[in-house]
Amino acid sequence: MEKFMDEDFLLTTPTAKWLYHEVAKKLPIIDYHCHIDPREIAGDRRFDTISELWLGADHYKWRQMRFGGIPEEKITGEADPREKFRAYASILPRLIGNPLYHWSHLELKRVFGIEDALTADNADEIYDKCNAMLEGCSARSLMRQFHVKAVCTTDDPCDDLGWHEQIAADSTMEIRVLPAFRPDKAVNIEKKGFAEYIRGLSSVTKREICCAEDVAAALGDRIEYFAAHGCLCADHGLDYCMYVRDDEAAARAFQKAMAGEAVSGAEADAYKTMLTIACAGYYAKKNWVMQIHFGCLRDNNRPQFAGLGPDTGFDAVNSRSGVENVAPLLNAFAENKGLPRMILYSLNPCDNTALVTIAGCFQKEGEICWVQQGSSWWFNDNRMGIRSQLTELAANGMLGGFVGMLTDSRSFLSYTRHEYFRRILCEKIGEWVESGQYPADRKQLTALVEDICYHNTNAFFGFHVI
Amino acid sequence: MEKFMDEDFLLTTPTAKWLYHEVAKKLPIIDYHCHIDPREIAGDRRFDTISELWLGADHYKWRQMRFGGIPEEKITGEADPREKFRAYASILPRLIGNPLYHWSHLELKRVFGIEDALTADNADEIYDKCNAMLEGCSARSLMRQFHVKAVCTTDDPCDDLGWHEQIAADSTMEIRVLPAFRPDKAVNIEKKGFAEYIRGLSSVTKREICCAEDVAAALGDRIEYFAAHGCLCADHGLDYCMYVRDDEAAARAFQKAMAGEAVSGAEADAYKTMLTIACAGYYAKKNWVMQIHFGCLRDNNRPQFAGLGPDTGFDAVNSRSGVENVAPLLNAFAENKGLPRMILYSLNPCDNTALVTIAGCFQKEGEICWVQQGSSWWFNDNRMGIRSQLTELAANGMLGGFVGMLTDSRSFLSYTRHEYFRRILCEKIGEWVESGQYPADRKQLTALVEDICYHNTNAFFGFHVI
Amino acid sequence: MEKFMDEDFLLTTPTAKWLYHEVAKKLPIIDYHCHIDPREIAGDRRFDTISELWLGADHYKWRQMRFGGIPEEKITGEADPREKFRAYASILPRLIGNPLYHWSHLELKRVFGIEDALTADNADEIYDKCNAMLEGCSARSLMRQFHVKAVCTTDDPCDDLGWHEQIAADSTMEIRVLPAFRPDKAVNIEKKGFAEYIRGLSSVTKREICCAEDVAAALGDRIEYFAAHGCLCADHGLDYCMYVRDDEAAARAFQKAMAGEAVSGAEADAYKTMLTIACAGYYAKKNWVMQIHFGCLRDNNRPQFAGLGPDTGFDAVNSRSGVENVAPLLNAFAENKGLPRMILYSLNPCDNTALVTIAGCFQKEGEICWVQQGSSWWFNDNRMGIRSQLTELAANGMLGGFVGMLTDSRSFLSYTRHEYFRRILCEKIGEWVESGQYPADRKQLTALVEDICYHNTNAFFGFHVI
Repeated sequence: MEKFMDEDFLLTTPTAKWLYHEVAKKLPIIDYHCHIDPREIAGDRRFDTISELWLGADHYKWRQMRFGGIPEEKITGEADPREKFRAYASILPRLIGNPLYHWSHLELKRVFGIEDALTADNADEIYDKCNAMLEGCSARSLMRQFHVKAVCTTDDPCDDLGWHEQIAADSTMEIRVLPAFRPDKAVNIEKKGFAEYIRGLSSVTKREICCAEDVAAALGDRIEYFAAHGCLCADHGLDYCMYVRDDEAAARAFQKAMAGEAVSGAEADAYKTMLTIACAGYYAKKNWVMQIHFGCLRDNNRPQFAGLGPDTGFDAVNSRSGVENVAPLLNAFAENKGLPRMILYSLNPCDNTALVTIAGCFQKEGEICWVQQGSSWWFNDNRMGIRSQLTELAANGMLGGFVGMLTDSRSFLSYTRHEYFRRILCEKIGEWVESGQYPADRKQLTALVEDICYHNTNAFFGFHVI
Repeated sequence: MEKFMDEDFLLTTPTAKWLYHEVAKKLPIIDYHCHIDPREIAGDRRFDTISELWLGADHYKWRQMRFGGIPEEKITGEADPREKFRAYASILPRLIGNPLYHWSHLELKRVFGIEDALTADNADEIYDKCNAMLEGCSARSLMRQFHVKAVCTTDDPCDDLGWHEQIAADSTMEIRVLPAFRPDKAVNIEKKGFAEYIRGLSSVTKREICCAEDVAAALGDRIEYFAAHGCLCADHGLDYCMYVRDDEAAARAFQKAMAGEAVSGAEADAYKTMLTIACAGYYAKKNWVMQIHFGCLRDNNRPQFAGLGPDTGFDAVNSRSGVENVAPLLNAFAENKGLPRMILYSLNPCDNTALVTIAGCFQKEGEICWVQQGSSWWFNDNRMGIRSQLTELAANGMLGGFVGMLTDSRSFLSYTRHEYFRRILCEKIGEWVESGQYPADRKQLTALVEDICYHNTNAFFGFHVI
Repeated sequence: MEKFMDEDFLLTTPTAKWLYHEVAKKLPIIDYHCHIDPREIAGDRRFDTISELWLGADHYKWRQMRFGGIPEEKITGEADPREKFRAYASILPRLIGNPLYHWSHLELKRVFGIEDALTADNADEIYDKCNAMLEGCSARSLMRQFHVKAVCTTDDPCDDLGWHEQIAADSTMEIRVLPAFRPDKAVNIEKKGFAEYIRGLSSVTKREICCAEDVAAALGDRIEYFAAHGCLCADHGLDYCMYVRDDEAAARAFQKAMAGEAVSGAEADAYKTMLTIACAGYYAKKNWVMQIHFGCLRDNNRPQFAGLGPDTGFDAVNSRSGVENVAPLLNAFAENKGLPRMILYSLNPCDNTALVTIAGCFQKEGEICWVQQGSSWWFNDNRMGIRSQLTELAANGMLGGFVGMLTDSRSFLSYTRHEYFRRILCEKIGEWVESGQYPADRKQLTALVEDICYHNTNAFFGFHVI
């Protein structure tokens, strides 16, 4: 029997162990998609308690605590931080097989040196120990500890990127912190606040915005602004991937939304399609990477959503992810101003094979995996989900060209997810090698693992770090 | 090599073996959803032949015999019971990898002490041996042998529950046998016989039923009646999960259906949605568990269906399961009179991740896993299906709060399915522990397995046995 | 550690090794569905270079080369064959986990005796060695080397089957080479060239074709013609499975398409449904096997498709495969002139469980697995895809009645895919036996493997070889 999460955690073969310990473990991290607030890096935020770090903004943990019947007061409410930590500790033993179980303990081990499994019994002791250790910790010290070389945050087009400017001007900060362009509020025309957002965009860009084309042009301005701040990529979040070509409906949708009138589903889809195609054209011109995240059913529990707002743990997999629209949408990009480099993520794991095969239709001469499926996202970011995604990608895509892991997280402790991914990757490759499915050629294996964990991302996005 | 289905069947690690033999095996059974006819328990039915027990009402076996080309006469027809048994035995060797292969042999082992694999060659010998042993067997003796503490049958709202009354009044019967409320005939307005059913419901409740609201009120009466007979739960069977809010269409659907006119799909969905929401309100008030089974494509082969009727083996997985409607439906329950405790089952295994994540949006303070995904159902009730469901549930839900297995069966031999499930569960937990993914803490592991196999069900439904 | 693809490749248990080496390996091959050009068999085609064999017509390899950024000139263009081979070799190491990695090396091993892993470094040496060995090779010698007993090609209804006649008349050719009827061009009314095709069909059959019924009658003539040439089966390729019963719409669709007017989706579906039902009636009468391949999203990248045409590597999995229409379509066959023997393939792996359960509704007395799910197709034809399909088929169908593998290939080297499948099959059965899930009865196991690899196909199609 393996010991609980020891140094060979998730690694069972000699090849897997060698690959992880001698190759993957030593590689730095480029975290090309996260939700860290750049202000926390600019100000080098410090943390009083592990509850702040763990439970301050992590809707993964909030969901699981609700499964455990924990009252909201101890989740997102005003309870004492120690009480919140105790509450989380109390549900952990029931989370066997859940990635939170592993992530939480990896964080306790790597940052706080705690080897015991957290339970209700030792919660107080561990809480005090963690908090004591936090005195020497800050946002930047955590990033350095995990060998982070670069991160991309997630930023609204209207953002002035002031915190990014401050970080860039700080000579004591050697880690690259870049903005990423996320125009969801300009795209998702059916959501509350759209008209107000467009008026803000108009004000920021000093452009009159009278039609959908004006929105695109305004975003074009902001893309230039972001590019001037070092931005290398954009990200679109869609509840489902749409594809409706109807310029009149798009125009109508915009007029109605700005007038506060209801927009039909087809009209909204037409507007979104038009704007997304326009954005892709800008990205292609800038040589940016375009990410699309789709397939999320949001804010499902209205009585609870009403109290807590979005991104608080009431989202689910959207079985109507619209994956069937991805190929025509990409084709439209190609027929417009050319396909940008792309990474595609669906929240529905049933889309894996379809997505990899669609990516395979849109490649570019001289470039490796120009369009590719992204790493297991959100509800799929667990041991089985990652294994499935790697296996599917290998079977119908080109694993050797994969850009690999990202944290998608709001927390400075989540870099352990790269460790988690790397262990699963090395185990998978180890299985193939040990069972004679791939040659035991150390040079070739080293190159594969280094590429997937680091070099591919560096080249694909154009970070040019190291 | 393991011996064929020996005591360590499906258990490969020391932890798995210990967990099964020392913990799971000893636990009694609460079978919270089955299709046993209460009359057979009331009358303590006896069986002349194993063919009666095996082939009298088991459409799982019928389907497989049809795959094997067995003539219908030896499946559901008038052939001699020995001939039927021989026919089933003759196809068994081709059923490698099929759960029937395991269930059949578990039943032969546990009830009849037969250790050999059944084939055409030894069919006669085994047939005779089983029949001889059946002389000492009855419905109740089988239930006792398997340590059954409580069962819920599946009962129509119009049922007078006479057999249940008889069982409850029988001082020699220590096992709790409770009705479960299954109002499908009042909900599924598009099916033949709806109008007649509603007239029967009117007669039973002594209520005039003139509109959809009257149907709901009549069901409310019957819910009271069932509650007075100890009922703790309801179950809704839907070909697909629908969500159409349109009271006018619902009203129209009812009038048309009662007049024998055709009801459109959208009208039927509106009626079903309205009635299902009303039912959920009653259940919430009564603190019942509400189960929803959806995603079945029924009666696909009309020429054969015409001869044999429903539930005879001509059903399939419905790829249009309507899983995308589950979240809005549950939200409607929550916004109406509050969410009852719920267990959700889709026949389409592709819905697993979506369903677990939807459940995660609808939890309740102070309660563990208030809404949860149910155990692998029907076509998914096999080793791989169960493993997948457990893995998905663990990854996005809370495995420790799971209510676990049910037989869903018409047979008194099917309690072996609990053994089958428990072995797979212990193997899965054993894998996590032996690979260092969870602590080898025997106390914690014992609690987990006892909860999933017994205590969670007892508490969730409120059986209060032991 | 296993050596790279040695004699026990993919076989890990004694039972698996015994089953493969002593049973499966020795069995001849009936390749009941392939895309080999019968002219190449008639003329006993020879090959100058391995590039011709590997890259001349293999869109699987083309796709992967595009993932690797190889310029089109070295894929489908005019580059020197050696350059093309080098280009393919250069991307191979990144294809870890891809079936092409295994297929390519199996072909190098079995036909050319090359044991090394192909890389950019040894590409020239291996290229020269292969070409030297090709001097003694021809289409027929390769077929003989792989113990091929019979193949079915894929032929258009208008084909005069001249090459098949020539092969049949050739007394030096002992391998049965039969045509298979593939009426896609008559069915897929929305595709370019439909009207012209129908005029050709009219000319070949000397029938006036004025309506959809006439198309059916003309196909009926060609079915007779094909039957007279030994044909045993038909194959329908559908982007999605449709089911729209509307004779008027079908008639309208035909008139519009012949007049060069646009046909709506619903009209096209009505026409296709009508014609497919008519074809199934003919097949049932002839006792042919009907195959349906559905769920492909074709020609997704229009700019590249424009240059290269169909079947060049721009297809993907269609998530809207229409699997929900399969059951009503089969029921329509049954209600019309009876169900033919059928094999169903969906390109969407999410359809596996649904498809097996649908097949289970349509069986026939006296026949084993009259309707069955086919082997993992195209994007699913890889180790995990095959394992999943076998597991699903076993769990809800009858694995012992499965007709097993086909190459679906344009290449004479692809018979190695039968070896690949057989190894995976023996490994899977070995797992069941070694873990005590199935008896270690060598006679029974031998029968199972022989049936799935050879006898079932022979009997199901009526090849009557050996």
